[in-house]
Amino acid sequence: MDPAYAALQAEVFALRIELRAVQDRQAIADLIAAYGPAVDRGDSRGAAALWAADGSYDLGDFGNARGHDEIAALFDADLHQGLIRDGAAHMLGPPRIAIDGDAAVAVCYSAVARWTGEAFELYRVAANRWTLRREAQGWRVTGRANRLLDGTAEARALLAEAHRPPD
Amino acid sequence: MDPAYAALQAEVFALRIELRAVQDRQAIADLIAAYGPAVDRGDSRGAAALWAADGSYDLGDFGNARGHDEIAALFDADLHQGLIRDGAAHMLGPPRIAIDGDAAVAVCYSAVARWTGEAFELYRVAANRWTLRREAQGWRVTGRANRLLDGTAEARALLAEAHRPPD
Amino acid sequence: MDPAYAALQAEVFALRIELRAVQDRQAIADLIAAYGPAVDRGDSRGAAALWAADGSYDLGDFGNARGHDEIAALFDADLHQGLIRDGAAHMLGPPRIAIDGDAAVAVCYSAVARWTGEAFELYRVAANRWTLRREAQGWRVTGRANRLLDGTAEARALLAEAHRPPD
Repeated sequence: MDPAYAALQAEVFALRIELRAVQDRQAIADLIAAYGPAVDRGDSRGAAALWAADGSYDLGDFGNARGHDEIAALFDADLHQGLIRDGAAHMLGPPRIAIDGDAAVAVCYSAVARWTGEAFELYRVAANRWTLRREAQGWRVTGRANRLLDGTAEARALLAEAHRPPD
Repeated sequence: MDPAYAALQAEVFALRIELRAVQDRQAIADLIAAYGPAVDRGDSRGAAALWAADGSYDLGDFGNARGHDEIAALFDADLHQGLIRDGAAHMLGPPRIAIDGDAAVAVCYSAVARWTGEAFELYRVAANRWTLRREAQGWRVTGRANRLLDGTAEARALLAEAHRPPD
Repeated sequence: MDPAYAALQAEVFALRIELRAVQDRQAIADLIAAYGPAVDRGDSRGAAALWAADGSYDLGDFGNARGHDEIAALFDADLHQGLIRDGAAHMLGPPRIAIDGDAAVAVCYSAVARWTGEAFELYRVAANRWTLRREAQGWRVTGRANRLLDGTAEARALLAEAHRPPD
């Protein structure tokens, strides 16, 4: 093979690998950005579908749901339905993302605002650690842990750097 | 043509298409991230220039402005000028973006914080649906709808998945 | 050289340049997204390491720290340690980024939420202007200015468009 051609081929191969990493980061950020709009418009199945079939949502004292049915049931529960009827915004901040092949970890804050009928209040502010997996259809959540940032060490531990394993 | 060369050419073409999609998503996120800083520093014309010449900003009961002059007038109005004089932050969250050729839809939350003189309060929390168009100078907003998340079905409908038409 | 080959080589070169710009934007957004989790989990050295060795953090009346030791000392101070013991979230919004070679400017909002023991409150809402430099290990912060959005012209000036020099 022509050596110049081989060098070009190697560069194209490198571009493909690096572009995939960039696309992965965008896809994961987009997946997380889909969570709030899904739960706040009442699309519990759509929100649960962001998870893998065996994915879990760990809310600490509020429970630990596994699989689409259990996760959708969290959003269908009275507490959550009351929130969105009154007016709520599940706002997720920009995630810090680390990708390792077909697995990823993302860390972000969530702030839930609630309309009291007279004003908006900050109802929940939490640390979130997401683990994700590349599946045939794209990235899916394998685990999400959410803890109120109320001074507990457990919440702070979720904020460990995305490229390190959880403390 | 050398078959190996043709394969390389096809891959380079694919990379170009995919890179453009990645750039488009970044450009749209950047455009939306420019909104808050523009209005909060009092640059009404700069904020309006994020819209296309025929673009609209639909605020429901607060009006529906079309074109740069009407949109800039929203930001020049007493209510808004009072807000930024007292201290305000128009914070837009990370958007969920869907692109189809030269058109795009983005969905995000907005939270306006206001300094009361003693503390910051959450003044407005809203759902936002943006439609955008690729123009010669880059992406511009063709429409933005904003509704307070105070429990109305109209606000929730704006949160429909970005890749689906509005309900 | 074969003219078709030369054209392909030029396109591959263009893709490399453009991909690097996309990667730079992601890396800068990721760097800024690492700030909150680092300070809120109490990793003062990790937070300071986001800055270049000669970088500064200008907090106006709250001081102007330069270098890793002084910046880490800000986070180790009683005020900050009390905040994270009680429960705090340093939430940074999506930045507006402009890159010029090995230098960049990013503008974003920050909102610090605090747990009072009974509720979350918006403790600080500020404008942030970051300057960054590409170093051997990646992008690092050379300067961050942070001002409360309490109506002062100084805070509004920080919101100047990222691609313009500060007012």
